[in-house]
Amino acid sequence: MVKKIHGGDIYTDRGLPSGIQLVDFSANLNPLGMPQAVKDALCRNVDAYQSYPDPQCRQLRRAIGAYYGLPDSWVVCGNGAADVIWRLVLYYKPRRAVLPAPTFSEYAEALESAGCQICYADLSAQEGFVPGESFCQAITPQTDICFFCNPNNPTGVAMPSRWIRSLMERCRETGTLLVLDECFVDFLQEEEAYTALPFLGEFPGTVILKAFTKMYAMAGIRLGYALCADETLTEGIRQTGQAWSVSTPASCCGIAALEQREFVAQTKQFVARQREALQAGLAALGMKVYAAKANYVFFQAPVPDLPARLERLGILIRSCGNYRGLDETYCRVAVRGQEENARLLEGIRQVLGGTWKGGN
Amino acid sequence: MVKKIHGGDIYTDRGLPSGIQLVDFSANLNPLGMPQAVKDALCRNVDAYQSYPDPQCRQLRRAIGAYYGLPDSWVVCGNGAADVIWRLVLYYKPRRAVLPAPTFSEYAEALESAGCQICYADLSAQEGFVPGESFCQAITPQTDICFFCNPNNPTGVAMPSRWIRSLMERCRETGTLLVLDECFVDFLQEEEAYTALPFLGEFPGTVILKAFTKMYAMAGIRLGYALCADETLTEGIRQTGQAWSVSTPASCCGIAALEQREFVAQTKQFVARQREALQAGLAALGMKVYAAKANYVFFQAPVPDLPARLERLGILIRSCGNYRGLDETYCRVAVRGQEENARLLEGIRQVLGGTWKGGN
Repeated sequence: MVKKIHGGDIYTDRGLPSGIQLVDFSANLNPLGMPQAVKDALCRNVDAYQSYPDPQCRQLRRAIGAYYGLPDSWVVCGNGAADVIWRLVLYYKPRRAVLPAPTFSEYAEALESAGCQICYADLSAQEGFVPGESFCQAITPQTDICFFCNPNNPTGVAMPSRWIRSLMERCRETGTLLVLDECFVDFLQEEEAYTALPFLGEFPGTVILKAFTKMYAMAGIRLGYALCADETLTEGIRQTGQAWSVSTPASCCGIAALEQREFVAQTKQFVARQREALQAGLAALGMKVYAAKANYVFFQAPVPDLPARLERLGILIRSCGNYRGLDETYCRVAVRGQEENARLLEGIRQVLGGTWKGGN
Repeated sequence: MVKKIHGGDIYTDRGLPSGIQLVDFSANLNPLGMPQAVKDALCRNVDAYQSYPDPQCRQLRRAIGAYYGLPDSWVVCGNGAADVIWRLVLYYKPRRAVLPAPTFSEYAEALESAGCQICYADLSAQEGFVPGESFCQAITPQTDICFFCNPNNPTGVAMPSRWIRSLMERCRETGTLLVLDECFVDFLQEEEAYTALPFLGEFPGTVILKAFTKMYAMAGIRLGYALCADETLTEGIRQTGQAWSVSTPASCCGIAALEQREFVAQTKQFVARQREALQAGLAALGMKVYAAKANYVFFQAPVPDLPARLERLGILIRSCGNYRGLDETYCRVAVRGQEENARLLEGIRQVLGGTWKGGN
């Protein structure tokens, strides 16, 4: 059994020469790091961590509900968004699913573990991995569940809310539960043009997934949640799996993070500026760069082993070879700060220098 | 859908008069609290929490392996022992299980969610809830899995390792996976007379469950693990469920906790002394007290609503009415410090004073 590869493996000893510091572009975390207020909340509440967490996450759900102006009964929290995905599938027990390809691998892993049959709607490289009308048509009355990631991981393609609404309507017609993963939507400068949040009350058959992981660089803390107007569904997910999936440190950090509105605004600006520069730099080096809108950039390299070559320089990027519909020439890199991004570009120049002269 | 009740709900507002502080006997945590070294480790490592955790928990598994002198390939970590139970069931997909009754409810919840049929081997009050030879005979070649909690929760009955070994032999004969929950075994003064740890290498069909939750009062942090010599099984559980179930704070706390050997020794002594005093005090008040050996005491009250009456005084105890095989007269209380235990005894005296005069 081989588990699918994920980004962010900074723990394997790579035997790098001393003096070379690892820089990780393989996990899509906020380049500004975890807000100090979140770190402070973590340490300030340490005496609360000996008791069991509240299985109902009441305080955290109230904070999330208040943040969006939604009832807290619409909120389900989990040990990262991945935990919510697994518990949702365990509760809902879908038999047939539609997934785009490529997309985040955790949906398929959870569905397969529950014995669900998956129908893939392949996104085409020629169309820049933008889903068309045919994606909606892949969803039929036989489809129990559909996962859709917006912006998509790893391609970074963001679909406007008008298109998303037509997907929601299609799923309502076919009686399909739609799980919209908006874990990266908060990085978009025109977030309101992409999020389906305003439609949530009209569509109780749609679940929106969110995480603290990326925006607040809280990946190690583990905290994600789902929003849905169908309270039978949210209560069902809440009751599935162990009672205490959300730790008290995660809950305290989440509540503190939601107050960091200025940090979110700064992040959006910072990421947009750095992403444009990084995309231009990659294109100048001859990479085929796609139009990603989130805090990561998706591109095709002229060689299949760019990630392995960069790893020897202490630079981790995400090879997309294990995504269905992609091969090893496809890569994903997180947008980081100016200096680190420059090191990535310089690294690519260096490792491709010997074999290939394109793009300069 | 009504989720089974658990102890430790300190989050519900009970409208207590001001000045009355809640004291929680309903969760079985170390009365000495979380070691300062664990709190320090949590805060010292805060900068490591923005990255994703290591999905393989390598550093933590090495520390646990070294603690027991076992290979780290035998160790599977989870988001509390409850997470390990759910992932084990999800991976192993048992169709028929044997459980003692009463016992910890999480086994049945996980098994039922996987569609497993449960055969209960009822423990008898007349025999002090001590399982006899008939328990082993309830396990047949049709039994895929058996959970056994030693000392048992909520009764506190601890079976000697000789008896446990015969259970392991029976399960080997019948091809049944035996999951031995030893989450409370570290509180026993003669731990080596009860634990099945020395037999683990001989019995690859036995899994031992452990948690940091109780001994290190880390319930809010969420960290548990399983030990098993069958590396296909441990790898299978590790690969089931989301990739990052163990948070980095939990991992850092666990590594620090394992160094607290003196704290564990102090705890055993402290708990044994306080438990004896508490048992004597409860018996003197007319409670039927069972011979619990861990950090909690199990007894039968002369009224069915003792927990509700105590709750009005700000004292939480665990009603055992929702355990199969018990009714609401059965209660479980954690052993706490002298002052708190005295408050519990005084509270019982007070709430029973009006209706009942026994025991004084």
